[in-house]
Amino acid sequence: MANYDPNNIFAKILRGELPAYKVFEDEKVFAFLDIMPRAPGHTLVVPKAPARTIIDIAPDDLAHVIKATQNIARAAMTVFAADGITIQQFNEPAGGQVVFHLHVHMIPRKNGVALKPPLSFKEEPAVLSEHASRLAGALQG
Amino acid sequence: MANYDPNNIFAKILRGELPAYKVFEDEKVFAFLDIMPRAPGHTLVVPKAPARTIIDIAPDDLAHVIKATQNIARAAMTVFAADGITIQQFNEPAGGQVVFHLHVHMIPRKNGVALKPPLSFKEEPAVLSEHASRLAGALQG
Repeated sequence: MANYDPNNIFAKILRGELPAYKVFEDEKVFAFLDIMPRAPGHTLVVPKAPARTIIDIAPDDLAHVIKATQNIARAAMTVFAADGITIQQFNEPAGGQVVFHLHVHMIPRKNGVALKPPLSFKEEPAVLSEHASRLAGALQG
Repeated sequence: MANYDPNNIFAKILRGELPAYKVFEDEKVFAFLDIMPRAPGHTLVVPKAPARTIIDIAPDDLAHVIKATQNIARAAMTVFAADGITIQQFNEPAGGQVVFHLHVHMIPRKNGVALKPPLSFKEEPAVLSEHASRLAGALQG
């Protein structure tokens, strides 16, 4: 496995060098909207610690990421009136990974609505901003 | 969300009422091969506690499931000479769930080899038995 590259775009988001539609943050986790969502509310949950994949992340950091994902999934069920949630986590190019900082995809789902293909659709900034705001609000409430 | 149904097939596996190709077990988690693997080594990791989805599982049980998944993924990289790992976890029919006991899919991947479609292929018992044995052995070693 390759080493962690600190110049990946999620590392830049974590350092504040790139903007993001923030949904949640604590001392170990940062969560933000995917700007190419496969469904409305598609959120990425990342550890703040540098980790490339599920192979090299510290187990307690991984546990923290999944617990945050659970909380965000619960909030998303309400905010997006979702019927279900699809969780995906890709490791290495063979596993579907495109950005090499570990991330969990949390995708709200509706009955009868297929996921958009990956990287097929860029959402409008105003929509992303509103979705992030509602999801962040539900997580605080 | 519907309540937990104790007659789902994974609950029957946990109670020993149905057989499974066991990969790993501890006090909180049971892991076994998917008999319709989307790639060789496709493993399902389930909590022993009854939980339907990521919404209703106790956070610490969820953390335990993902830590076990991490260990199994590490072992699978070696056993199956994998180039990557795809993790999926489906919640409710809208989210892709078919069996209503929470489970994490851990799927070893090879460069250039697409996942088989879900439920498209039933593996031979002898192959499943050999894969489970090698993966279990790597986890003990």
